[in-house]
Amino acid sequence: MRIEVINTGTELLLGKVINTHAAFFGDELFKLGLRITRQTTIPDGEDIHRALEEAFPRCEVILVTGGLGPTSDDITRETVAGLLGLALHKDDAVWEFIRQFFLKRGREPNSWNERQAMVPEGAEVLHNPNGTAPGLFVPAIEGKSPHLFLMPGPPRELRPMFRDQVIPRLRKLSAAPILPWRNFKIYGVGESNIAEVIEPRIQDVENLEYGYCCRLGEVDVRLIGTETAIETASEVLREEFSEDIVTESETPIEQVLIERLTEAGQTIATAESCTGGLIASTLTDVSGSSAVFHRGFITYANQAKTDLLGVPEAMLAEYGAVSEPVARAMVEGCLENSHADHAIAVTGIAGPTGGSEAKPVGTVYIAVTSRGGETVVRHECFTSDRISFKQRTTRAALDLLRRRLCGFV
Amino acid sequence: MRIEVINTGTELLLGKVINTHAAFFGDELFKLGLRITRQTTIPDGEDIHRALEEAFPRCEVILVTGGLGPTSDDITRETVAGLLGLALHKDDAVWEFIRQFFLKRGREPNSWNERQAMVPEGAEVLHNPNGTAPGLFVPAIEGKSPHLFLMPGPPRELRPMFRDQVIPRLRKLSAAPILPWRNFKIYGVGESNIAEVIEPRIQDVENLEYGYCCRLGEVDVRLIGTETAIETASEVLREEFSEDIVTESETPIEQVLIERLTEAGQTIATAESCTGGLIASTLTDVSGSSAVFHRGFITYANQAKTDLLGVPEAMLAEYGAVSEPVARAMVEGCLENSHADHAIAVTGIAGPTGGSEAKPVGTVYIAVTSRGGETVVRHECFTSDRISFKQRTTRAALDLLRRRLCGFV
Repeated sequence: MRIEVINTGTELLLGKVINTHAAFFGDELFKLGLRITRQTTIPDGEDIHRALEEAFPRCEVILVTGGLGPTSDDITRETVAGLLGLALHKDDAVWEFIRQFFLKRGREPNSWNERQAMVPEGAEVLHNPNGTAPGLFVPAIEGKSPHLFLMPGPPRELRPMFRDQVIPRLRKLSAAPILPWRNFKIYGVGESNIAEVIEPRIQDVENLEYGYCCRLGEVDVRLIGTETAIETASEVLREEFSEDIVTESETPIEQVLIERLTEAGQTIATAESCTGGLIASTLTDVSGSSAVFHRGFITYANQAKTDLLGVPEAMLAEYGAVSEPVARAMVEGCLENSHADHAIAVTGIAGPTGGSEAKPVGTVYIAVTSRGGETVVRHECFTSDRISFKQRTTRAALDLLRRRLCGFV
Repeated sequence: MRIEVINTGTELLLGKVINTHAAFFGDELFKLGLRITRQTTIPDGEDIHRALEEAFPRCEVILVTGGLGPTSDDITRETVAGLLGLALHKDDAVWEFIRQFFLKRGREPNSWNERQAMVPEGAEVLHNPNGTAPGLFVPAIEGKSPHLFLMPGPPRELRPMFRDQVIPRLRKLSAAPILPWRNFKIYGVGESNIAEVIEPRIQDVENLEYGYCCRLGEVDVRLIGTETAIETASEVLREEFSEDIVTESETPIEQVLIERLTEAGQTIATAESCTGGLIASTLTDVSGSSAVFHRGFITYANQAKTDLLGVPEAMLAEYGAVSEPVARAMVEGCLENSHADHAIAVTGIAGPTGGSEAKPVGTVYIAVTSRGGETVVRHECFTSDRISFKQRTTRAALDLLRRRLCGFV
């Protein structure tokens, strides 16, 4: 079943608003074993006519967002009725709901709002408890149009309607078996390296689809197919990347770490220079992190490294802040100045300024230590813009902690 | 000049990755007086062929992202060459750059990467300093195709390339006059409140277009039109929201603050509980922040508030961590335990758990103090998901610091 998405809304094309619709639908549909074959964004107004016409022959379902509002720009309803030759009639129940919606807020609906109660012949009303415009389901007309779901644009109206009313109908319409899938999160290996290693081994596996998504040091490998095919490919990944696999799920690394530490009854403290708090912030994005994370230090200046972590001034003068000895002293000082079981420290050059021939922008030392355990320090060079540097370094630091907790380092 | 955007990438349709391309292009083009007429997302693989074919007759420029990578999914280059009947040849300079890119990282390119050095006949190479795949500009072929810009998918590669290489070419190709525009960033006032106040005063100004974009406590008001119209509307905003205007530009608040502190030769320290490092990380996203930010404390647990900031245990026991007295003690302790001129502290309930009737999820106290100045504490309630709470609180904290630096509090 081919499903297309059409999002109407000039604000989505003017640069200020990011279109989250495709990601939302994509995620919800994926879990039903369905896929989006195309997503299109068009301005408010006339373009909806052409976009729908062009899409009709290409698919079995179209999800349309926007254009159901009360202004002169909102013409989705009328356009669909016109394209399909369907009469529009005013639905009394919808109109009553709209009236009540306004009265509850101490206001009156106007004539623009009356248009929102018009329903094309044969369409089903999709109730919208969070706004004035109901959605509409226009069943496929053989030889003419695919199934159409018309929904409001604002996510807080769209998402409940999609989950409560559209998904049940899609399940009925779709004969798709929900294909099993498995996601591997792999850290510390580049996408092309992973491909180079596994493709010769899995490209001939029957009933298997796979894809990669690489984001700043993190690669998601998604396997889709029969249980057998998935397991075959999984075995290859586990063999080739045994220590690099963060999780066989979509769980973010920070959540994997918080869960692992919680299970072990252990805590972590952080000492950050160049990442400026991003490591701690990432860990605390996870609900429940307060069980395992109690304190973090941001020692952005050398004096702070000395005052808060006990890094000797002489060491900073001799080796410089961005060095292996200082990373070691920072992480050990972090552990000493906390009650934690493990500590992470990073020191590096985020750029764009501050680099030198010996220590170019992107140089970073990442250290992990544990109470009663050894300190390990890694040197990396993440050459890119400042923000990407911080994100890559954060991911590498969390991954080094993971390897420590797994006993790999 | 009709401009369409085609984004390739199955990950954009599977729910994993949000498509920020349209917003980015929309924003950049807007400033050039240009508009996107349609944006389309398609999966990796074959669909690029049909999507391009269908778009050719509809517009004068197509911006294509993705499909230039080193895997078997990446076929944009070959598809365009095939559609237009252009031969592909290996570009020596591009290949040398790719080789050096890998060598610098201690790796070797493989045969997959060789495809990335192939250039269609007549195309101009758009250098990519941030990745292996160069972009390509394929000039319009009369009667056959519009101007095509093929660019890499990852934003950190795409954005510099677009700004440095595509925009100059678009300027030459476009005859559009570049209309003046001005952006106001306003904090602490809701979008509908701003609209309610200024619309009566500016809706009849001639030659003026305006729009709002509200994101988690930050409202951008964009004015476009003649210089006179913009100045008229600007005067209204300055009058009505004099203390709420962060900047008359698109400069993010953290950069405004870093610049102001740098100018004043002053420094800031942070003490964070519920934001877990996000405030410090946001400040240190700004290049040059090391001049004004030297240390930050993340006191996630009560013991850390006592150990690092001197918050009395008795006070924590009596009022609870999320309270006005504790916020005050945190910010004053932060100042005392640093050499900074100003300090920020936040303590709150990020959720989803931890709330109560008296202190629901979203409750937060934000404090600012200055050496030789008074402490001010604000109470807010940002009810939403955990991540949005951290972002709203961070913005509110930075704004309170701004108001202190401006002398408004």
